[in-house]
Amino acid sequence: QFKVALCQLSVTADKARNIARARAAIESAAADGAKLVLLPEIWNGPYSNDSFPEYAEDIEAGGDAAPSFSMMSDVARSLQITLVGGSISERSGNSLYNTCCVFGSDGKLKGKHRKVHLFDIDIPGKITFQESKTLTAGQDLTIVDTDVGRIGIGICYDIRFQELAMLYAARGAHLLCYPGAFNMTTGPLHWELLQRARAADNQV
Amino acid sequence: QFKVALCQLSVTADKARNIARARAAIESAAADGAKLVLLPEIWNGPYSNDSFPEYAEDIEAGGDAAPSFSMMSDVARSLQITLVGGSISERSGNSLYNTCCVFGSDGKLKGKHRKVHLFDIDIPGKITFQESKTLTAGQDLTIVDTDVGRIGIGICYDIRFQELAMLYAARGAHLLCYPGAFNMTTGPLHWELLQRARAADNQV
Repeated sequence: QFKVALCQLSVTADKARNIARARAAIESAAADGAKLVLLPEIWNGPYSNDSFPEYAEDIEAGGDAAPSFSMMSDVARSLQITLVGGSISERSGNSLYNTCCVFGSDGKLKGKHRKVHLFDIDIPGKITFQESKTLTAGQDLTIVDTDVGRIGIGICYDIRFQELAMLYAARGAHLLCYPGAFNMTTGPLHWELLQRARAADNQV
Repeated sequence: QFKVALCQLSVTADKARNIARARAAIESAAADGAKLVLLPEIWNGPYSNDSFPEYAEDIEAGGDAAPSFSMMSDVARSLQITLVGGSISERSGNSLYNTCCVFGSDGKLKGKHRKVHLFDIDIPGKITFQESKTLTAGQDLTIVDTDVGRIGIGICYDIRFQELAMLYAARGAHLLCYPGAFNMTTGPLHWELLQRARAADNQV
């Protein structure tokens, strides 16, 4: 048994402030005894195709090129927690990905999930968004062995597809984590239902 | 668009009465405009391992050996409805199955599903039941083409297994029907959740 903390963050256009607030939320969660802490999807800047390139970080380069990444690594190590770092936009070569980084309690990057199912939607008068306009879809499953067990990672709309959860369960995942920034048009009908279904169907 | 009727039946130990009441419910549904009518699981006698052999019918033989079966065929033809006949216990050779018969609007048997996932449960003080004590598990998927579309059939606990629904969707089912007699211990946590999940995940 261990405590899990889900940090919900109000995101602004001020990247440095978003990073500082995320760090404060993680520190507060750890102070309350959380051993596994999660951040939401795209937490370091606004959720828009205009912003994805501007707030993107080069995770391979690290350091100053990746201040969100560096903060997560540093805080996981100093607090000795497992951190599922929600997601940030990641620049890799000429591509942008919606990427979740998972850190061990030693601060090391244990796994990196690039959102597989991009969310393209057009419900006139309600919600129109096309992630594929700027983002590239990931191609891989992501399973991470951590201090709190084997975790399968998806990002937001990835939860819509039962096959991903089934593959994670078949590969021995104890826990599935889906950082999200679900919208309020299609979200209420899907988010709770699909989380409960994935848990019951796959016993994770 | 068409009307669907789900008949909920109070079942007694009197088989002739159960058959008469089921017929009356089907007739009432058809009178209200239903084109597809469903009965519940094991509707012609008590739900117990003692009763399964006693109320079983030989569907292949038909006629007097299968009064529940004969009623369903007759009423489907005379009312020109599609009937997913819940389930009855079926005797075939030395085996008993929990079997759903599907009738076309011509009264002909279009498909027969033998419950694949038998329900063996033991929650002390709550519910203990072992279907496998008397019943044999079916081995096959059942997809039926009817006047109201292509229907994938499962029985009760079959709904617990996402793979069955996925196979039906992959084979072009428009509709999934799971006649059930779910218990009130594990039922409330599963029945609505799994029906909604199968529908949303597979878009049926």
